[in-house]
Amino acid sequence: MEIRKPLCGVITAMITPLSDRDTLDHAGLERLIEHLIAGGVHGLFILGTTGEAPALSYRLRAELIERTCKQVADRLPVIVGITDTAFVEAAKLASKAGKFGAQAVVTSAPYYFPASQVELLDYLQHLAAEVPLPLLLYNAPTNTRHTFQPSTVLRAADIPNVIGLKDSGGNMTYFHSVVELLKERPDFTLLVGPEELMAEAVMLGAHGGMCGGSNFCPQLYVRLYDAAVARDLDQIRILHSRVMRISATIYRVRQPTESSYLKGLKCAVSLLGICEDFMAEPFCAFGSAEREKVRKHMVAQGLLPGLD
Amino acid sequence: MEIRKPLCGVITAMITPLSDRDTLDHAGLERLIEHLIAGGVHGLFILGTTGEAPALSYRLRAELIERTCKQVADRLPVIVGITDTAFVEAAKLASKAGKFGAQAVVTSAPYYFPASQVELLDYLQHLAAEVPLPLLLYNAPTNTRHTFQPSTVLRAADIPNVIGLKDSGGNMTYFHSVVELLKERPDFTLLVGPEELMAEAVMLGAHGGMCGGSNFCPQLYVRLYDAAVARDLDQIRILHSRVMRISATIYRVRQPTESSYLKGLKCAVSLLGICEDFMAEPFCAFGSAEREKVRKHMVAQGLLPGLD
Amino acid sequence: MEIRKPLCGVITAMITPLSDRDTLDHAGLERLIEHLIAGGVHGLFILGTTGEAPALSYRLRAELIERTCKQVADRLPVIVGITDTAFVEAAKLASKAGKFGAQAVVTSAPYYFPASQVELLDYLQHLAAEVPLPLLLYNAPTNTRHTFQPSTVLRAADIPNVIGLKDSGGNMTYFHSVVELLKERPDFTLLVGPEELMAEAVMLGAHGGMCGGSNFCPQLYVRLYDAAVARDLDQIRILHSRVMRISATIYRVRQPTESSYLKGLKCAVSLLGICEDFMAEPFCAFGSAEREKVRKHMVAQGLLPGLD
Amino acid sequence: MEIRKPLCGVITAMITPLSDRDTLDHAGLERLIEHLIAGGVHGLFILGTTGEAPALSYRLRAELIERTCKQVADRLPVIVGITDTAFVEAAKLASKAGKFGAQAVVTSAPYYFPASQVELLDYLQHLAAEVPLPLLLYNAPTNTRHTFQPSTVLRAADIPNVIGLKDSGGNMTYFHSVVELLKERPDFTLLVGPEELMAEAVMLGAHGGMCGGSNFCPQLYVRLYDAAVARDLDQIRILHSRVMRISATIYRVRQPTESSYLKGLKCAVSLLGICEDFMAEPFCAFGSAEREKVRKHMVAQGLLPGLD
Repeated sequence: MEIRKPLCGVITAMITPLSDRDTLDHAGLERLIEHLIAGGVHGLFILGTTGEAPALSYRLRAELIERTCKQVADRLPVIVGITDTAFVEAAKLASKAGKFGAQAVVTSAPYYFPASQVELLDYLQHLAAEVPLPLLLYNAPTNTRHTFQPSTVLRAADIPNVIGLKDSGGNMTYFHSVVELLKERPDFTLLVGPEELMAEAVMLGAHGGMCGGSNFCPQLYVRLYDAAVARDLDQIRILHSRVMRISATIYRVRQPTESSYLKGLKCAVSLLGICEDFMAEPFCAFGSAEREKVRKHMVAQGLLPGLD
Repeated sequence: MEIRKPLCGVITAMITPLSDRDTLDHAGLERLIEHLIAGGVHGLFILGTTGEAPALSYRLRAELIERTCKQVADRLPVIVGITDTAFVEAAKLASKAGKFGAQAVVTSAPYYFPASQVELLDYLQHLAAEVPLPLLLYNAPTNTRHTFQPSTVLRAADIPNVIGLKDSGGNMTYFHSVVELLKERPDFTLLVGPEELMAEAVMLGAHGGMCGGSNFCPQLYVRLYDAAVARDLDQIRILHSRVMRISATIYRVRQPTESSYLKGLKCAVSLLGICEDFMAEPFCAFGSAEREKVRKHMVAQGLLPGLD
Repeated sequence: MEIRKPLCGVITAMITPLSDRDTLDHAGLERLIEHLIAGGVHGLFILGTTGEAPALSYRLRAELIERTCKQVADRLPVIVGITDTAFVEAAKLASKAGKFGAQAVVTSAPYYFPASQVELLDYLQHLAAEVPLPLLLYNAPTNTRHTFQPSTVLRAADIPNVIGLKDSGGNMTYFHSVVELLKERPDFTLLVGPEELMAEAVMLGAHGGMCGGSNFCPQLYVRLYDAAVARDLDQIRILHSRVMRISATIYRVRQPTESSYLKGLKCAVSLLGICEDFMAEPFCAFGSAEREKVRKHMVAQGLLPGLD
Repeated sequence: MEIRKPLCGVITAMITPLSDRDTLDHAGLERLIEHLIAGGVHGLFILGTTGEAPALSYRLRAELIERTCKQVADRLPVIVGITDTAFVEAAKLASKAGKFGAQAVVTSAPYYFPASQVELLDYLQHLAAEVPLPLLLYNAPTNTRHTFQPSTVLRAADIPNVIGLKDSGGNMTYFHSVVELLKERPDFTLLVGPEELMAEAVMLGAHGGMCGGSNFCPQLYVRLYDAAVARDLDQIRILHSRVMRISATIYRVRQPTESSYLKGLKCAVSLLGICEDFMAEPFCAFGSAEREKVRKHMVAQGLLPGLD
């Protein structure tokens, strides 16, 4: 299966179902994938930040790619995060993604070290040449402390197999700048990361969003995307408000924010009975007090039946 | 004249026309105000970041308030920035704003020192009690390193004369959170700061925007606001693209970004013959090379006639 | 009295005794100054960060300068912080400092706005020309987000009345770089800000330190300075350890750190009966629970007699 | 060979000699190790930040451990960086370090994700339990955005095989706090990272330093360490000034700073003919213009003979 250019819709930034630090929850993974396909999402992004990729062993990452591709069986595009601090390891993951049948790979900047825009562009050129699949850039300044400047994205778009950008920075001025610069390249995929910004991004030029929340309620994000494409602002406001409520409750059960997002999200999926919420270090799953809070938020928002 | 609740539309974050470090450009100020009123903006915000307020003497700030109010003569609401590190000085400015006939004042957090959310709320309560006018909060983390957390905004909204929030943080997830929290308060004004985000903010719940760019082309921002209110997405995309082009060119003639925004903006107004572009320390106006670049960008974008 | 070049020893970054937001505690101020002179410090620095200067009205700042100079009566050099976001206000304060008989003024970068090193140097040149006194630079990146790069300090050292630098950044690599660059200028004063770093700074080239803790126990810091000058490492280690203990206890009664430093320090002085611990917004003095903790720390460290 | 407790002296944070992205420069590695041993350093720290560890493949990291241990042959302790975002990979590296005969391993916080102090302590406890060697903590906030708070270090010091801390944060107040807290644990190794701070750290309680500069001039750092132990302040000042001159010249040939440190350092070693200066992505070695600048600095400082 070849990937559509541009890639449109809701791509689930998939959590990684774990039953232990280095053990996939196989049954959970199968249920999760079927839940997402049934929910109507347009693609899967595995091994991203939401998938805890940097915290997983390479062995497990490879296993996840293989099992996901096999289970999906070309019903959806599977996109694989290969971001790494080491070039060689990123290239190896990309090669595995190609071998197991994924449709594309995604890389952010090699974090840990600082790097100039020239060095980042060199990195992308070297990596793209080693990667047997289409490559998307992943702008993730919060975690990597690197930003692909709009002009760097524009130059990277000339690399043959670089097909798009996912922006998780949360800075819509940045995103609009990239949209403006890439106007002449309607085939270049532009996806937005924080699900809280998908509606406006799609109205103003994005092709879709990578939504973590679609792990537990895929329909909500799919309907929001559809409403944004249809320019149905009344509907957008209703659905966007639901997205913001999830963001303000389920993702904020405990501070700090980013970790509470990952923990709340994984907890919510597990409360639906889809998979366990084991988390790799440095995180650990919510304890029973936080779990109960997530449950109550889900019930209050109609995302889970009450206990009565 | 009493201020409308909520305050809607394009509020110009007005530059301060200077002919020297401590001298207002009187003729320039008059021309600028008439230009803005003729351009259809819905209010003036003086002594904000775009107005270089922190760099101006208190004497000049008072003079600016007096002259602006006199010139505007209630044709538009005049909103006055009183942000200060010293409570007493902020209260004094507010008192002058009241005396000279302004309609509201705006304060961000007292910068320089760190402060907790509790301290920020205390500050707002103490200050609001001393201020003879309606008060808007100004979330400006870039310059003040303080964020009014959404829950702090919600609490501050209960202070009798606190009537709204201007958010300049550029983080739309934050802005949407505040919109969501204040749903039951349709009278509470919500304005967005970066002009690059006004369209989406208005479509999703903001009442308007404070736009620096409206100093030189007020109609563009007014038309964009109107299109957002009318939900005319085709028109929004065309106008928003023009706003982004200004942002990517006139505001980026020299790095760093924030300083190049202020310099580019003031230069653009002066190229229209409205006022001088003298800037108070720590800034100085663009030299002839940068000025020529700004001019070329303006000509290319139809904002200034060519030289032919 | 003319200021020594270089200025050596322990300069107390003096707290501002307040009995209300805009009211000096006159008796407290007198007691504090006598306490410091009796304690052997080598100079007073008023209206710095520790003096809460940015939070005070200009009227009160002028009053403090006048009263301090009068009370000190040339027994010690009085150095006045004039840091401001507005050039004109900084120059006015400097002029008052000159009029009331202070020996020098201190300025950090004009905060709020970003500024390049060229703009900072221009600022210093313009300001120095308006200032009737010797001027020290104040590197305070935590509060101002600006750093005077070592090369900027070197250039500023050529401005006739610029006589030194106080570095509060806490980055000793930066400090050593400045020491190295200014080797040929033995008259140029180099003071270090955090009292925790005075010992090593003096051993490696600094002329002294501006110590907040010397407000309540001046002798400790004076003895540490003397030991550093005498290169008595056994003594240095003992005294430095006491300084670190104060830092880890009295200054950390409540987070966040910087605010807890100011609150703990002012509380400690008030526990000695020297002055009240009223604080200007955005801060407020410690409540009784925190006050009791500070008291216990002081008793445990022999800084206050026990209650028995 | 068992590691001394505490571990004292100059530990070279060793660069990794590469002839290609995934190829060790074997001859260069041998020459480098012999150069360091001949230079009198007290230990080797491989696979740290200076060793570009995060940018290297796991295969190459294992090879480097094996070859280094073999070449060193217990003449010096070999300490191995195992910092990783993935627990399982860190544990694997530690196991290899044990197998090949290293004396200890070093870990910073698992970067990429944010983590609380509780999570960091849990991480250390879990990891220490899997590690067959003594473990040092590595406080490296610049690269990892995590700080091991002093209280976390104190708790971690109770884990049986945790034997020390290397602090690369450059904040001496932090370092002194840790020294103070661990006073009762004279066996707990405290090393300081930036070589610019080794002298003062050793005078005030550190056991030594991890110095990148000792890759090319080991004697300078060894002599500085010896002078610090001997409390010979005249000698310290002379040698420290040489260290600062290297820091201000060879490490600053091109900005940004951190990358220019690594490039300048590797270039300097290669100018001595010890090994190539190939660098793994995201970096690349200095071009001929920068190389010439480094050469000139070295000649001017007597670190390389002139060309005449």
